[in-house]
Amino acid sequence: MTESELPVVAFHPYRWGDPDRPAELPPTAREALAAFGITEPAEPPLTPDQVRLTSSRLSASARDELIALVGAESVATDDATRLAHTRGWSTTDLLKLRAGDTADAPDAVIHPDSHDQVQAVLELCTRLSIAVVPYSGGTSVVGGLNPVREGFDTVIALDTSRLDELEAFDEVSHTATFGAGTRGPRVEELLREKGFTLGHFPQSYEGASIGGYAAARSAGQSSAGYGRFDEMVVGLTVATPRGALHLGTAPKSAAGPDLRQLILGSEGVFGVITSVTVRVRPAPTARVFEGWRFENFDAGTRALRHLTQRGPMPTVMRLSDEVETQVNLSDPSRMLGGGPSGCMAILGFEGSETDVAARRATVSKILTGLGGENLGTEPGDAWRKGRFRAPYLRDPLLDAGVLIETLETAAFWSTLPRLRQAVTTALTESLTSQGTQALILCHISHVYETGASLYFTVACAQTADPIAQWAAAKHAANEAIRATGAASSHHHGVGTDHRDIYAREIGPLGVEVIRGVKATLDPAGILNPGVLI
Amino acid sequence: MTESELPVVAFHPYRWGDPDRPAELPPTAREALAAFGITEPAEPPLTPDQVRLTSSRLSASARDELIALVGAESVATDDATRLAHTRGWSTTDLLKLRAGDTADAPDAVIHPDSHDQVQAVLELCTRLSIAVVPYSGGTSVVGGLNPVREGFDTVIALDTSRLDELEAFDEVSHTATFGAGTRGPRVEELLREKGFTLGHFPQSYEGASIGGYAAARSAGQSSAGYGRFDEMVVGLTVATPRGALHLGTAPKSAAGPDLRQLILGSEGVFGVITSVTVRVRPAPTARVFEGWRFENFDAGTRALRHLTQRGPMPTVMRLSDEVETQVNLSDPSRMLGGGPSGCMAILGFEGSETDVAARRATVSKILTGLGGENLGTEPGDAWRKGRFRAPYLRDPLLDAGVLIETLETAAFWSTLPRLRQAVTTALTESLTSQGTQALILCHISHVYETGASLYFTVACAQTADPIAQWAAAKHAANEAIRATGAASSHHHGVGTDHRDIYAREIGPLGVEVIRGVKATLDPAGILNPGVLI
Repeated sequence: MTESELPVVAFHPYRWGDPDRPAELPPTAREALAAFGITEPAEPPLTPDQVRLTSSRLSASARDELIALVGAESVATDDATRLAHTRGWSTTDLLKLRAGDTADAPDAVIHPDSHDQVQAVLELCTRLSIAVVPYSGGTSVVGGLNPVREGFDTVIALDTSRLDELEAFDEVSHTATFGAGTRGPRVEELLREKGFTLGHFPQSYEGASIGGYAAARSAGQSSAGYGRFDEMVVGLTVATPRGALHLGTAPKSAAGPDLRQLILGSEGVFGVITSVTVRVRPAPTARVFEGWRFENFDAGTRALRHLTQRGPMPTVMRLSDEVETQVNLSDPSRMLGGGPSGCMAILGFEGSETDVAARRATVSKILTGLGGENLGTEPGDAWRKGRFRAPYLRDPLLDAGVLIETLETAAFWSTLPRLRQAVTTALTESLTSQGTQALILCHISHVYETGASLYFTVACAQTADPIAQWAAAKHAANEAIRATGAASSHHHGVGTDHRDIYAREIGPLGVEVIRGVKATLDPAGILNPGVLI
Repeated sequence: MTESELPVVAFHPYRWGDPDRPAELPPTAREALAAFGITEPAEPPLTPDQVRLTSSRLSASARDELIALVGAESVATDDATRLAHTRGWSTTDLLKLRAGDTADAPDAVIHPDSHDQVQAVLELCTRLSIAVVPYSGGTSVVGGLNPVREGFDTVIALDTSRLDELEAFDEVSHTATFGAGTRGPRVEELLREKGFTLGHFPQSYEGASIGGYAAARSAGQSSAGYGRFDEMVVGLTVATPRGALHLGTAPKSAAGPDLRQLILGSEGVFGVITSVTVRVRPAPTARVFEGWRFENFDAGTRALRHLTQRGPMPTVMRLSDEVETQVNLSDPSRMLGGGPSGCMAILGFEGSETDVAARRATVSKILTGLGGENLGTEPGDAWRKGRFRAPYLRDPLLDAGVLIETLETAAFWSTLPRLRQAVTTALTESLTSQGTQALILCHISHVYETGASLYFTVACAQTADPIAQWAAAKHAANEAIRATGAASSHHHGVGTDHRDIYAREIGPLGVEVIRGVKATLDPAGILNPGVLI
């Protein structure tokens, strides 16, 4: 079968986001890059038709058995479909594909259209010893779709995109059940018809699906108001090689450990999430986003912490450091063109008219008292408009010879300044020692009463081997994160990239716990081998 | 050693709460019981000195090894200490002790004073095949302290009450780390000195300790404002037979499943929690509690749901049904003396002056619009004063010949009316068929955006075998809960009492997951055998 017969794959593995809306670098950015010593474009990437894949290793008999389960139209072994399911969206993933490295391509792509089909495929693959990569939106930036083939001759991608229905809606309880493959915008569209919203807007929103949010323990840009994705989930259905798990009988319970929280963040190594029941909220009728300026990052951090710990909470709250404020990534049209001095915070308020007005008035008073300067709604609206566009800039930057990637972590408030310093120093020293001057931006992207996340964007000139260049920098950052006692990841997940630091974070006994659960649910170890643990 | 040399055990296993403050039934209650056909007092309970324990089965060599680890003063085998650690505070637990049944008495009670001592004791007990009951506040009402001896000749209670320090306090991050044995009032006392509060007030507050809150996934009466205990926990240290787990590097993380949520609710079967790090909040400077009357339970439920789903949220929110409103359990002095007609809700507001005033004003407007009638602060203050006293009434009621017990569950809002009806019918039919007319009270005690908990209080005349009488009624209620798809327990936990319904709730594969984790952390199965699974 050809790709055109498959469910629409709106994205491709070469670039971030919608291929019909590529970003171009503004002239100001080109000037800034030149000032940064970056004048040579990178090796142009191979185009999809130039890339060669090794032949699919899926045996004819296994293919027949898969077809018997899900139908011929749901088993693809053509190169285009395999390529479209190769790896995720990390810079390293892109660099590999640009260079024609397709070693991680699956041997086949299966598109089951029901929980029962997923269940049957897992049982078959267990019997045939075929590794299975659960493929949701394909937006992993931590190597979550790059399993270790070791021990498995054949690897298939199990694409959940046909599980994309609103399966149940409970207007009284404010819950909705979606097929795991339902993408972010479709979730919002289906809920909008009911007058509701999920309120989950990670930067991968356009491509990621609700099952992936769950598997990767996602956090969206409105987490201050709507919570993290793990806080939205009240129910999960999971197909495992040993059978189905149906979790969630009530919002909260004291009946044993919360097994939902064991599946959330499990990145497909225990089973394939087939449906997710989430708490939904009435769609907001009012919305105001505004910018606030603080003298420096410490002052801004104190202000965010004050609101988080003492209220009231805006719906969106983030703070860029001095460098990021200058670079102003949120507005690609002016990118690298300079922003205000000091540090800019974006605050968003969503809700009813009166609620928004009341919270905003109180917050304004508090922030003014803490030295903040209201910059009005213009920076807020610009951020809101640009927030999903920023990652599109990575592709033209890679073309221009820039190495650009992000990483994130989280810690308690008292650790945050030390963590920011340690990571910045580690990245700077690693990249400088490799001969490339680095630009390091940082912002607080998610806040909690007891702490926050730090999100770093790193840019420098590419060396001859940008993959190794980034690996060294990332390793240095990970060591700094571990030394500070912070979290290996706040919302990107573990994948294969963070596996080692994650193991050190939870310790050998923690790893054994995860392995024990995996041995129970996936005794043959077919699911995402090498991911997470 | 004698009991007096041990750390103060302020409570005894015969009765609820502080033995120095027993409750007496008011005359109105006696009249009401007579009207209910209850005129014969129950068989008077045996007193502690009348009770005989079988000899401790702890061998002399095991005792010596334990003493070598923790010191002679921390190993008690005397009858008084063993008796004080026999079972918890369920009505069945009390009835058994009243009748002199000490079959569940531990052979020894160990009082380690550090994480390392706990760790060493677990390793020793693994080697010697001695079962260990982690004993925190001793307030379980679901048989969480009644392990199944099968396979173990010797059972010891591991009492964590000496782990009662404020180990760390982070004023910037609003976190505090307590030894697991720190009791509720001591937690608040230590935090008050810093100007903070935990805000966790379960009805077992006076006796329960912070490690028990965690192990049993507790929920307190201010959960609407402060959250459940599992939402307060940011870090845990756990001693397991295989070594220590240190969990919690940040408030939230995407690095794998949340292993904290696997320990919370594990009821000591995976390990002994030795310290808990919790989010704390500035102590409130204003506090108002008030009563609201609704025409009936459905109208009151709609009002609570409205506030929970659309805000603003009071700090405390609960709603009694018509019968409970009449009986007015919250005010022991007038108990069974009659309350207002309709259904009474208690709403509490805590925070700063302005915050309390603002939330209260908005809530008042909303509730009035939903048909609520403000009863002023008198019922609110009465509830606040009486809320920890109500359970003290159980003992004089048992003396008077009344069988009285509580049970609880949780469900999504749309299921709640059906759940309440099903449980009420099941209890009524079971008790009526046993020849005893039943009084069944119900309230909503904890609210969430997507659902709530239901708390039932059941009273009737004791039959000749009140333990069997209650077991039958409870079984009927459990079947109704399961048939409705609700949670086996909202905050009491699983223990031994809910083990079977819990297994059906999570299914055979869910049970295997729990067993798999236990096999990893406690391969010899010494920890709380027969509890949870």
